[in-house]
Amino acid sequence: MNATATAGVTRRAVGAPDVSRLDWDEVGPAVELLLRDYVESAQVNAASVWARELWGHIGRGLDGGKRLRPQLVCLAYGAFGGTEAGECAAVGTSFELLHGALVVHDDVIDRDFVRRGHPNVAGIYREAGLARGLPAGEASHLGSSVAVIAGDLLLTASLRMLERTTAEPAIRSQLTEILHGAIADAAAGELADVLLARPVFGGDLAGEGDGRIDDVLDMERLKTATYSFEAPLRAGAVLAGADAGAIDAVGRVGSLVGTAYQVIDDVLGTFGDERQTGKPATSDLREGKLTVLTAFAHPESASPRSASPRSASPGSGPDLDQMRDALHEAGADSYALTLAHSLVTEALDEARRADLPPALRSELTRICNHVLHRES
Amino acid sequence: MNATATAGVTRRAVGAPDVSRLDWDEVGPAVELLLRDYVESAQVNAASVWARELWGHIGRGLDGGKRLRPQLVCLAYGAFGGTEAGECAAVGTSFELLHGALVVHDDVIDRDFVRRGHPNVAGIYREAGLARGLPAGEASHLGSSVAVIAGDLLLTASLRMLERTTAEPAIRSQLTEILHGAIADAAAGELADVLLARPVFGGDLAGEGDGRIDDVLDMERLKTATYSFEAPLRAGAVLAGADAGAIDAVGRVGSLVGTAYQVIDDVLGTFGDERQTGKPATSDLREGKLTVLTAFAHPESASPRSASPRSASPGSGPDLDQMRDALHEAGADSYALTLAHSLVTEALDEARRADLPPALRSELTRICNHVLHRES
Repeated sequence: MNATATAGVTRRAVGAPDVSRLDWDEVGPAVELLLRDYVESAQVNAASVWARELWGHIGRGLDGGKRLRPQLVCLAYGAFGGTEAGECAAVGTSFELLHGALVVHDDVIDRDFVRRGHPNVAGIYREAGLARGLPAGEASHLGSSVAVIAGDLLLTASLRMLERTTAEPAIRSQLTEILHGAIADAAAGELADVLLARPVFGGDLAGEGDGRIDDVLDMERLKTATYSFEAPLRAGAVLAGADAGAIDAVGRVGSLVGTAYQVIDDVLGTFGDERQTGKPATSDLREGKLTVLTAFAHPESASPRSASPRSASPGSGPDLDQMRDALHEAGADSYALTLAHSLVTEALDEARRADLPPALRSELTRICNHVLHRES
Repeated sequence: MNATATAGVTRRAVGAPDVSRLDWDEVGPAVELLLRDYVESAQVNAASVWARELWGHIGRGLDGGKRLRPQLVCLAYGAFGGTEAGECAAVGTSFELLHGALVVHDDVIDRDFVRRGHPNVAGIYREAGLARGLPAGEASHLGSSVAVIAGDLLLTASLRMLERTTAEPAIRSQLTEILHGAIADAAAGELADVLLARPVFGGDLAGEGDGRIDDVLDMERLKTATYSFEAPLRAGAVLAGADAGAIDAVGRVGSLVGTAYQVIDDVLGTFGDERQTGKPATSDLREGKLTVLTAFAHPESASPRSASPRSASPGSGPDLDQMRDALHEAGADSYALTLAHSLVTEALDEARRADLPPALRSELTRICNHVLHRES
């Protein structure tokens, strides 16, 4: 979600008849403050100079995010009548910290040392090692090691932040379950990503003999859609005291939209403009990730790694460019776009069927349009 | 803590005048049950076949531990008058799960694929990759990647387990703070371990110009003593409603004993019997870890890596054996043993000064003797 969608949330709130309706203009700054306070407090209480420095890098890594997940918490919370900006911000910040944790560990697993065009935590410590004369392999392992630690700190920060809500015990307990469920799904999705990228492990993620593309969609739903869309929307609804049916419905919509988001991410990860996505184009191909694109083009042994082993000069252009062209010729990108459209259509049908509040449906429609047309 | 110390806790409880005094014979099985239930529930609710399998491996990794941390919770809880076995077990299990998480991630950082003589999570997936024909480097990265995920699951399990206590909010909140503080210290200690092993980063962990051995001791206190000794003892005391002075005192004692424990671990990691420690002798030397031994022998550039770069055939004996002999000739092992003795003496002095309950002091003495004479 970029500035367009943010503005959308704001405009809707301003135009709504109920003036007490919660506004992202109020919640957004509270989220920034909670993030900054958490990092500063961790720095003040750091047990060593090095831990203080690491928190500095973690804090800068959290800066400038789009705050998609807190916005979704805010959207659902406001739509179901929530009015407490502070409560909403704490829950949203918890998801933002979880996102930070998962990104840092995902980068370790993907051997990515760059994020949004800058060195990530692993990259910063790898560079420090290289600058001090460590061999490349050692410097990379140093960077990854520190990133494992940083991710652990962010993961616990996420759970700790949720304890700041003053909601009644039954609500808090539901929120905690949602967060833990999101972490479990993200872990299962990450595991599937790791194993699906290695065709020797076979597929059949759900144990139901699905096809390869269904495996990829399951993986993307688990890895991204749950914690980024479904869980924040559900959490916002729970915090506002929505009824169980509405909570489930908004969760299902989130899961579908989030899966569509990830399908588009696959397209951007292979065909996107590096200047806009902030990560090297073809990075998915280089790491041999199984995506909707590669699963479509190679339904049996779906990983590009089987076609082009990693040892074949990582980073060198030609091979990867050829693979990208072959995917395009096979129609993989237009297939993925069609798939994303149909997921979004299903999501909006669900929102209509479940009779979600009109303001919420209208925002979800806006978000869906944004998901389909985003460029980074 | 092995069977001797366990028996000690039991014997004391049986011999104590207050028959309602909490007994490890009651708490220990409750801890096993909580661990088994948690894993089984995670398997039942697993989002994929692969996640279910991973939980199976995680569960087997948790089997057969000495349960040192739950025993320490039980010891302090019982000594300060606690009688609820279920409450005590939940808090103890939380620390056991934290231990599991930290071990799994520590093994990733140390590139260890074996634990207690068997493949750890990373080792299991590395072997699966090798068996399916992945190149060695890829198989190792696969194993480490799955271990990053497994550690995240255990870390969140630890925090989730603490939510099972039904203690009043003020106590729960203190317990949560203790657990989070322990995680923060463990992260700072792991970070120090990673950076101290690379002399190019210099030392000066606390920013106070300490010497090299003080840096190692700080690192070991943070990395191990807090979460393994100090925090479980404090948590047990808090759960039993001990007063603030006693809680702090038992924590300080734990921190000193835990540091001694880690100093002995250094000795075992270099001079220990592989059949008893369950990990390859000289593994600390191979990974180039900074220990009390190497800091004593090489006070300036304390890492053996500077003497023998990693590239020099890992696992090959002669070099490492020579380094071990040199450490022995320099008197590093007897220095470390003296240091551990003096830490333990300081701990027992503290316990006396703080006027901790006599039964607790007597158990702490027993534990100290065990720490000094343990062989694995």
